[in-house]
Amino acid sequence: MKKIFVGIDLGGTNIKIGLFDSSITLVCKTSVTTEADMGPEAVVDKMVQTVKKLLTNAGFSLSDIITIGIGTPGPAEYSEGVIIQSNNLPKFKNVPIRRMLSDKLGGRPVVLDNDANVACWGEYAIGAGKGVKDMVFFTLGTGIGGGIISNGELVHGCAENAAELGHTILYPDGRKCNCGQRGCVEAYASADSTARRACEAIEAGAESSLKTVLEEKGTITSKDVYEHLAAGDRLAKEITDGTAKALAITCINMLHATEPKRIVFAGGMIAAGDVLLKRIREYFDEHIWSIKKEPVEIVFASLGEDAGIIGAAALASHTFGQ
Amino acid sequence: MKKIFVGIDLGGTNIKIGLFDSSITLVCKTSVTTEADMGPEAVVDKMVQTVKKLLTNAGFSLSDIITIGIGTPGPAEYSEGVIIQSNNLPKFKNVPIRRMLSDKLGGRPVVLDNDANVACWGEYAIGAGKGVKDMVFFTLGTGIGGGIISNGELVHGCAENAAELGHTILYPDGRKCNCGQRGCVEAYASADSTARRACEAIEAGAESSLKTVLEEKGTITSKDVYEHLAAGDRLAKEITDGTAKALAITCINMLHATEPKRIVFAGGMIAAGDVLLKRIREYFDEHIWSIKKEPVEIVFASLGEDAGIIGAAALASHTFGQ
Repeated sequence: MKKIFVGIDLGGTNIKIGLFDSSITLVCKTSVTTEADMGPEAVVDKMVQTVKKLLTNAGFSLSDIITIGIGTPGPAEYSEGVIIQSNNLPKFKNVPIRRMLSDKLGGRPVVLDNDANVACWGEYAIGAGKGVKDMVFFTLGTGIGGGIISNGELVHGCAENAAELGHTILYPDGRKCNCGQRGCVEAYASADSTARRACEAIEAGAESSLKTVLEEKGTITSKDVYEHLAAGDRLAKEITDGTAKALAITCINMLHATEPKRIVFAGGMIAAGDVLLKRIREYFDEHIWSIKKEPVEIVFASLGEDAGIIGAAALASHTFGQ
Repeated sequence: MKKIFVGIDLGGTNIKIGLFDSSITLVCKTSVTTEADMGPEAVVDKMVQTVKKLLTNAGFSLSDIITIGIGTPGPAEYSEGVIIQSNNLPKFKNVPIRRMLSDKLGGRPVVLDNDANVACWGEYAIGAGKGVKDMVFFTLGTGIGGGIISNGELVHGCAENAAELGHTILYPDGRKCNCGQRGCVEAYASADSTARRACEAIEAGAESSLKTVLEEKGTITSKDVYEHLAAGDRLAKEITDGTAKALAITCINMLHATEPKRIVFAGGMIAAGDVLLKRIREYFDEHIWSIKKEPVEIVFASLGEDAGIIGAAALASHTFGQ
């Protein structure tokens, strides 16, 4: 019997599915559209059919599956395996997705966790976090997602909402965040907030080569900001410095909380590259205490788009053994 | 055979020692002066003699000891059982205190942890944190110490310096902290910083009934500030509001990090009572996100001065079983 671990990344637009061997090496993968408006039954059927097709194409059968992992956006009762609701999957309300998937995949055990935790676990298991036991993970996208690994286990918290690191407050009474709080790090340093701060500065009269972009496209992305930084724009420098400083201080705060050995940044904005990473490290060194030098490493994620399926399979393997 | 668990709280001035039964109920306790300037050998001998005396007085013998726990100020290599150095115990450098104690107490296993973690564990095991699996702990004294319990275990971090919660940064580029950072919550909301902010405001010309205290005593304590708050002083209100707000936002940040079910405040300043606790809860409710109501409880510690010996004994029991 072969041993196959299935990793599923269920998003609002696409479902990514991968088959992995017992060392979590990718065997094959695919991506299909979610068609979330068909409702949970149809989406689960689609996942099941896609898994079966992958198995057949690769010469495996349903009985080769050891366990299945699935990552979804929250909120969910992860340990119960139930998606409570989801902005990206509007028809999913109180869906017992773990049981539904298991029933249709030969009764194999399924583990459900949120997408940030799953990606965090992927990096921890075989990516940029490999080799440490204590790690903190940030995704820099529309918002800022987080994951914490302490002594080799994900920190889930009392109601499975731990590691909402984007909503730690960095500047009390500061910028309004989508969550209703003020001064969250997400309101400064996500890809969207980085772009938004640039827009606001230009609208308030700041001089910048980004002004033309805003006029032509009607909007600015974080990619634009980093491109104009590379071209020497002063406002882009100021905005990206603000982003790096916010992330660096959040790293310091997490160091003083769970003391990770490594902090891993993922998400679309890490495409900015070394200019972002270097600046985070500089602000970290500038603001960290002097009484002892901490051995923390700040790095970028290494798994890219596949972190979700890798993490889901790796977490399933960790949870249910091999 | 009786089962005795020994808890030791090693401070710079006093050593507190307690004997506990297997349900961590106090059998007897005592306190002796540390006389730290006699050096580690003499201090360990004193601890050993005191433990033996307690045993004899209570009708036990050395062989009744199951295990010993000891809490000390850091930094130390706790898992190695070695005190590296200590401001309060100046002659203690690289002292293998765990082995020294064990050798002289019948070879019984000894667990060493820092004083804040030990007190945190005491509250968790039988005090204000009893019944939850996820807890965060703050001590409000000269500084602000911390402890984190996640899924029923202390979070130690990669180099055993986790939960330095007083040094999470609350106001970037804010007040200078003793640790070298700026804007730490400790620089605003410890007992000492609360008093210091009052002094500074008066020296800067603020009107307050505390002015007389400062002139007569040359200093102000946090106790003075809370007494003058009770008497209706406006500056005392402003200062203590600042303290409560800083603590509340730090609670929010820890909620979004490890998601405790309960947050426990300990230390000298909780003597301020409900006026402090109520204000922390109010600021928490005012600043927390609106998207979901968290079930976190914010409470005061219940073990008082004995938290150290109780926690040390309870941690030893947890670590080495019964």
